[in-house]
Amino acid sequence: MTLALYPGKFDPVTNGHLDIINRALHLFDEVVVGVAKSSATTFTTEERRWFLEQTLQGKPNVRVETIPGLTVEYARQLGAKALVRGIRAVTDFEYELDMALMNKKMAPEVESVFLMTNLEYLFVSASRIRELASFGRDISEFVPPVVAEALQRKYGLTSARA
Amino acid sequence: MTLALYPGKFDPVTNGHLDIINRALHLFDEVVVGVAKSSATTFTTEERRWFLEQTLQGKPNVRVETIPGLTVEYARQLGAKALVRGIRAVTDFEYELDMALMNKKMAPEVESVFLMTNLEYLFVSASRIRELASFGRDISEFVPPVVAEALQRKYGLTSARA
Amino acid sequence: MTLALYPGKFDPVTNGHLDIINRALHLFDEVVVGVAKSSATTFTTEERRWFLEQTLQGKPNVRVETIPGLTVEYARQLGAKALVRGIRAVTDFEYELDMALMNKKMAPEVESVFLMTNLEYLFVSASRIRELASFGRDISEFVPPVVAEALQRKYGLTSARA
Amino acid sequence: MTLALYPGKFDPVTNGHLDIINRALHLFDEVVVGVAKSSATTFTTEERRWFLEQTLQGKPNVRVETIPGLTVEYARQLGAKALVRGIRAVTDFEYELDMALMNKKMAPEVESVFLMTNLEYLFVSASRIRELASFGRDISEFVPPVVAEALQRKYGLTSARA
Amino acid sequence: MTLALYPGKFDPVTNGHLDIINRALHLFDEVVVGVAKSSATTFTTEERRWFLEQTLQGKPNVRVETIPGLTVEYARQLGAKALVRGIRAVTDFEYELDMALMNKKMAPEVESVFLMTNLEYLFVSASRIRELASFGRDISEFVPPVVAEALQRKYGLTSARA
Amino acid sequence: MTLALYPGKFDPVTNGHLDIINRALHLFDEVVVGVAKSSATTFTTEERRWFLEQTLQGKPNVRVETIPGLTVEYARQLGAKALVRGIRAVTDFEYELDMALMNKKMAPEVESVFLMTNLEYLFVSASRIRELASFGRDISEFVPPVVAEALQRKYGLTSARA
Repeated sequence: MTLALYPGKFDPVTNGHLDIINRALHLFDEVVVGVAKSSATTFTTEERRWFLEQTLQGKPNVRVETIPGLTVEYARQLGAKALVRGIRAVTDFEYELDMALMNKKMAPEVESVFLMTNLEYLFVSASRIRELASFGRDISEFVPPVVAEALQRKYGLTSARA
Repeated sequence: MTLALYPGKFDPVTNGHLDIINRALHLFDEVVVGVAKSSATTFTTEERRWFLEQTLQGKPNVRVETIPGLTVEYARQLGAKALVRGIRAVTDFEYELDMALMNKKMAPEVESVFLMTNLEYLFVSASRIRELASFGRDISEFVPPVVAEALQRKYGLTSARA
Repeated sequence: MTLALYPGKFDPVTNGHLDIINRALHLFDEVVVGVAKSSATTFTTEERRWFLEQTLQGKPNVRVETIPGLTVEYARQLGAKALVRGIRAVTDFEYELDMALMNKKMAPEVESVFLMTNLEYLFVSASRIRELASFGRDISEFVPPVVAEALQRKYGLTSARA
Repeated sequence: MTLALYPGKFDPVTNGHLDIINRALHLFDEVVVGVAKSSATTFTTEERRWFLEQTLQGKPNVRVETIPGLTVEYARQLGAKALVRGIRAVTDFEYELDMALMNKKMAPEVESVFLMTNLEYLFVSASRIRELASFGRDISEFVPPVVAEALQRKYGLTSARA
Repeated sequence: MTLALYPGKFDPVTNGHLDIINRALHLFDEVVVGVAKSSATTFTTEERRWFLEQTLQGKPNVRVETIPGLTVEYARQLGAKALVRGIRAVTDFEYELDMALMNKKMAPEVESVFLMTNLEYLFVSASRIRELASFGRDISEFVPPVVAEALQRKYGLTSARA
Repeated sequence: MTLALYPGKFDPVTNGHLDIINRALHLFDEVVVGVAKSSATTFTTEERRWFLEQTLQGKPNVRVETIPGLTVEYARQLGAKALVRGIRAVTDFEYELDMALMNKKMAPEVESVFLMTNLEYLFVSASRIRELASFGRDISEFVPPVVAEALQRKYGLTSARA
């Protein structure tokens, strides 16, 4: 059985993230979505985790966990063979390469696996979504419904398109 | 069961390629190493395939095949869920991204999966190996023995280091 | 009146090229599509020009010409204010930046203008199209009909999808 | 008539920005320089706008405005056909590509147009200018006079070169 | 006699930095390691300087100084012919290229010299080290002993590997 | 005494190459310009070497040699401490990084040293020069006189600017 860890901040989870989760489920037997603790996020760890749980509920072979410490050590503790990362662009890739080399050094039995988001999500990032929402844009086509609602509450959006 | 196709020219196979094959075997149930036909190679399709077969013989869950046409269609015919690619550098990555987008369009059920070569193989490419061999350098630490011998025969190497 | 030159090899013209032509027509009063002479192309200069003429016939404010010498000098002779280039990726961009600096030096009154192809053409390049066609793939969704027919004749395609 | 919007923070405006404005005026009938509101700038929105107004006063076909919300929506409200961006480097370009894809999705009738700064401004960025000024360097060759004076007042520069 | 300045924040000094210092000493007669003042660092200027002094003490032809203002002006005051920079990755390089162009403009007699860190330090950056230490990881193989101890005191590490 | 090897094809030598030679002479005691043998060049090894000798004659501390085999081994035989490379762009850099890692492995005592060409040579490459000359452009401001004459003879240039 091959277990994969897909770590991230998910601040908030986007349709691009969900696309990567589905791709990982197509390849691996089980996927743990790992929410990284961080105080420098727009949503709290609990909120970020709750968005994922609401969105993924009922979906088999996937569960959401909070990463208690260093990602690569958590992967090892889980017995994950794959550390899944979505890549969208060249600058992403450099950072990921760097991180993967360090992770390989610390946990050689965990393989960094890069998957590519679908073309239509290539320009969807959590920070862009937050920026659009803060300007009152309807972002419901880029995020799951539970996130669209939370962004509307946070930024006072109306659902009508500008 | 998850089958992965690892396609390439393997002109000739290097220890970096073998590293990717081992990583793929760690993640997937079976790996097909697909040798792309090409007339613009130093070694013939038969030679390139033979190097791989000699090197991988006895290793379970991996076999070598010649790709009869377009790679992504061969992946689909095999029933491969993963199309494995090794990446070493940013320029590699751009080409791979491009190819992966086209492949996704043509065969949505085949996932492009990028794995990273080990640090020590980061600078080992088949073209660099051929260049070193053509200058009479001992390249036996970068390639499997059967390839080292073939390069020595081709370029008249002695095994002593320059 | 602002005239723009859109130079290229167009070997053959793709829907991505047509997208850039339409964008240029949206911005400028007249667009000259300049076909670069080259002996290292799959199609002859006449064929490449004919594909464009067939595809663009009847469209106002655009005409097809053969570039007789250096592109930037031809732009100057035409009185073009803009030298339009489509960009798809970072590696494209580096080459274009380099070329634009040299062009600026030689003809300061001609402005290099970079437009971005639509998301759906991001992975459509003339070389990829030729490669797909040579493997017998139906490429009619990526190129205008006149090019699809020419590629089928050249590579013996049938119109049925593989 | 073709209207172009050139948006930015202009914190403060540099000779590189002015070079892009002049290039845009060479290509388009009218240029609106749009100052983005931001609290994370060294100069206030009013100061940043005032620098531009002082520098551009008397120049035909260009005016300075404050962007009230999301840039691409402001472009649409203005009836701008072109959203002008200056690019200096590869990392700039990746960000711009990303932004342009999102903008295209939200306002298909507004074309992102990338112009290249002159060679001599390739290394002039507003953040570098502020850094130099904070170390007491004379930066008067990189910015318009009104900005040089403001930086001198802010950082206590003398006009003599170090 | 050729003097080289190797400037940086060294927050804290890593084995990768030491590798660059040794390479610079191999090429140049004397190396000044210049510690940049900054309030946005984890360790104070005094601490960062002290780590370097402890680590380099007794080593001939190298000394540690605090950079009083702008780096390139300090290089000029020292009479340094070379401004040494270590590069690890493409994104580093873009920033460095930019900086080098500005420096060349301000002090044409100081040459920017880029050296490459050893393969084994390619993924060792001060920020990654701080991150690992904050998660309680033993980082003693990546930094000199004096830094390992300071990080342990700061983050309450035990020397045992997790 | 520090000897540096500056290897290349120099097909033909440009003012950008000469700029790097002068920078290397500013930093190191002696510079050997090493001409790589190649049959895939526009000018023969003898011509490429002769251009350099004519251009550099009388200049102290620099001499021109033909590289008999692998560059890094020649550097070692010469006793060179530095292997000098000029870099102009990000794509250059990736290739150079790759090469430097391999060279370091084969000759740890030879340091790869990257210098940056002057801003005005950023867009001057030997291939661009040959392309311009083949279109009849006067390229005398980009290359030394002896090369300008040779290009005129080869491509039938007149010295008048087009």
